[in-house]
Amino acid sequence: MRFELTKEYLEELNAAVKNNAEARVAEMIDGLHAVDIAEILDEQSTEEAKAFYFLLPNELGADALIELDEDVRERFLKEISSEEIAEKIIDNLDTDDAADLIGELPEDKQDEVISHIEDIEHASDIIDLLHYDEDSAGGLMAKELVKVYLDWDVATCIKEIRSQAEDVEKMYTVYVVDDNNILQGRVSLKKLLLSPDKKKVKEIYNEEVRLVKVDAEKEEVAEIMEKYDLVSIPVIDEIGRLLGRITIDDVVDVIKEEADKDYQMASGISENVESSDSAWILTRARLPWLLIGLLGGILGAQVIEAYEGQIKIHPETAFFIPLIAAMAGNVGVQSSAIVVQGLANKSLGLDGLWVKLFKELLVGLINGLVLGTLIFFYNFFFSDSLTLSIVVSTSLVAVIIFAAIFGTLVPLMLNKYKIDPALATGPFITTVNDVFGLFLYLMIGYLMY
Amino acid sequence: MRFELTKEYLEELNAAVKNNAEARVAEMIDGLHAVDIAEILDEQSTEEAKAFYFLLPNELGADALIELDEDVRERFLKEISSEEIAEKIIDNLDTDDAADLIGELPEDKQDEVISHIEDIEHASDIIDLLHYDEDSAGGLMAKELVKVYLDWDVATCIKEIRSQAEDVEKMYTVYVVDDNNILQGRVSLKKLLLSPDKKKVKEIYNEEVRLVKVDAEKEEVAEIMEKYDLVSIPVIDEIGRLLGRITIDDVVDVIKEEADKDYQMASGISENVESSDSAWILTRARLPWLLIGLLGGILGAQVIEAYEGQIKIHPETAFFIPLIAAMAGNVGVQSSAIVVQGLANKSLGLDGLWVKLFKELLVGLINGLVLGTLIFFYNFFFSDSLTLSIVVSTSLVAVIIFAAIFGTLVPLMLNKYKIDPALATGPFITTVNDVFGLFLYLMIGYLMY
Repeated sequence: MRFELTKEYLEELNAAVKNNAEARVAEMIDGLHAVDIAEILDEQSTEEAKAFYFLLPNELGADALIELDEDVRERFLKEISSEEIAEKIIDNLDTDDAADLIGELPEDKQDEVISHIEDIEHASDIIDLLHYDEDSAGGLMAKELVKVYLDWDVATCIKEIRSQAEDVEKMYTVYVVDDNNILQGRVSLKKLLLSPDKKKVKEIYNEEVRLVKVDAEKEEVAEIMEKYDLVSIPVIDEIGRLLGRITIDDVVDVIKEEADKDYQMASGISENVESSDSAWILTRARLPWLLIGLLGGILGAQVIEAYEGQIKIHPETAFFIPLIAAMAGNVGVQSSAIVVQGLANKSLGLDGLWVKLFKELLVGLINGLVLGTLIFFYNFFFSDSLTLSIVVSTSLVAVIIFAAIFGTLVPLMLNKYKIDPALATGPFITTVNDVFGLFLYLMIGYLMY
Repeated sequence: MRFELTKEYLEELNAAVKNNAEARVAEMIDGLHAVDIAEILDEQSTEEAKAFYFLLPNELGADALIELDEDVRERFLKEISSEEIAEKIIDNLDTDDAADLIGELPEDKQDEVISHIEDIEHASDIIDLLHYDEDSAGGLMAKELVKVYLDWDVATCIKEIRSQAEDVEKMYTVYVVDDNNILQGRVSLKKLLLSPDKKKVKEIYNEEVRLVKVDAEKEEVAEIMEKYDLVSIPVIDEIGRLLGRITIDDVVDVIKEEADKDYQMASGISENVESSDSAWILTRARLPWLLIGLLGGILGAQVIEAYEGQIKIHPETAFFIPLIAAMAGNVGVQSSAIVVQGLANKSLGLDGLWVKLFKELLVGLINGLVLGTLIFFYNFFFSDSLTLSIVVSTSLVAVIIFAAIFGTLVPLMLNKYKIDPALATGPFITTVNDVFGLFLYLMIGYLMY
């Protein structure tokens, strides 16, 4: 049932493509889905991919292109003429995918491609969609949908749906509009099938329909669809006219992207990269956070330098520098991650800021006391200095509490000022907590010795 | 359109519930979705929640319960008698949700509840579902589906679908089976609507249907549905009989859970916790990784202790301990995160292990050289010791390269031995890299001075 791409398969396919063995290629890709074809295209050289692409059925090829990574698709489309893009690709795509793909082309090529689209209605729908910001509901929606009017009866609806549905690949909901195309509600296919032919739409339709404005952000669309388990959602303009609809498959991608982005932020990666990207792209994504880490390290060095005399007399103070820094970093990351995830999932609850901070204080205190006690006994038995044992344990408790509260506060503050709270996770919070933890430790040591 | 729960709303609602002001409550919850009701229940005390619950329409209340967090639901159900659970909740749920809810009850209460379900067919479907592992396709599927037989004609189908559809809330696909209930394919409602009444199903159905075996893991189900943009998928047994179907809304939850889990692992949190959980649960989730960090800190202390003499003579060596440790940790987390995400998204490509490691080596080398050069100039201008400058820069390059390769290798190895590679992210990799980085740094310092 499932396709697993192997090196052997790829080599055989490339050989068949090279020999222009159409029948063999058709046999090899029998039953494959567009996603599977995209996986193959992704592993081929641009030349191989182009030759393979022209042996594919038009619709399968077009759908596969949509599944490709943007950078691979861009490289590929450079090799294809505007006329071929219009006829072989755009004509076979839904309006939303077509607009996305055209939006990625250089401006002059965009116009060329559009001028080659034969179906005028398709072309004008695409031009409409190109006006919307790609991160908005308008950028996600497709023009293809099935709608009926309030005054129609069930028999008319079914007849009309039959003709509209030819263009609509996935039909989940039938939208109900008035004579001005203002969205009034929805009626399910099930309801239409279960109602007598002569019933009017206005007698059976459901007024309650969740919808989004065309300028809503895509994260908001994803949130609503996810929260209310919707498979499609209608998009309206300022005065309520039905413009298009967004389907769940596009929104699953948004949800994945969001989750991936937060994960990458937490891991100190600044761009959306994949293991298969080039070493240069990977470096570019990783260096910024490392520079912050370096800066933190330099600050840390200055903090320690300030206590150089102290370390000369009590070199054992230096032993626990990494422990304090690491614990401060770990606790800060934990606290901020919980807040960031709570913000993303809207599961922070109704507690006020002070209640949240008090809870973090409590969590920090428990963790701090457990860990502080453990390290105290370790030092008590394995080191010669009682003072050192007390200094390390006291600082550890203080540092953990500070890191927990700081890690909670920063993402909440960022969020308040509409900055992505995920910025607070990963190297930034680690670095600040590292440096401050060190300072706290060395100061406590200085005071106690 | 969207409901935002506020403290004021909650207080007003609780007052209305307390006064048993049914009409006011009904007015206040008008238009709310089950998810919104769940948000309210989540913020109420168990007593308030119970009183509120019994004022809700049965179906809305039952659906809201399903949306609650498991621990809140459990606490709530303790207060409700088995008979009430059966009649007010289970009777109003689809089989998959009903089975999930019953599965969470204590064993003796399970039997009691089931004995109170009036609809025998509903009860037996639920009992069937209870046998499946909740993390398998069987645990996700619902028994409610619409199916037609190969020999039926379109008119019969539509008639039968009308009667079957009454029980099926969301109908996306009509499944086609033979006389032995063996799944043969699917036919879309659209196709049925577009075909003449006398056509037989076998003339118009689509043989290609993606399906899952009943014992498939839920992650596999999620992967297939996400990859192929499916809104529902049929579940079959060993010999191909149609048992049920899984819908996208259940799978979106699995996708979210998976992403959340990886994110929490990377942040050093060992359980699925939320900011609104109790301080005790939060501590329990965070302490394990902190203990690993503590152990790492103790190992680090021992490494430094071994070079105590060195630090006594050159206390400036201690300045850069946090920098080296932090950079080692950051680079390790970055590398492992990229691999973990690549494994999760199946986007690692076909490159072999050596190619991957070579690329990491290259990335590490570039990052290392950039950062090593920067820190060299910093030290050259701001510290007195040329030796220290060289030691710090050399160690930094070595540590970064080591951490990059180690961070790549560990998750790949874990995955090979079927251990969750996400274990390699977060505190574990940070800790190992910290300790080893320190060792490398101090050793290089020892050799060069």
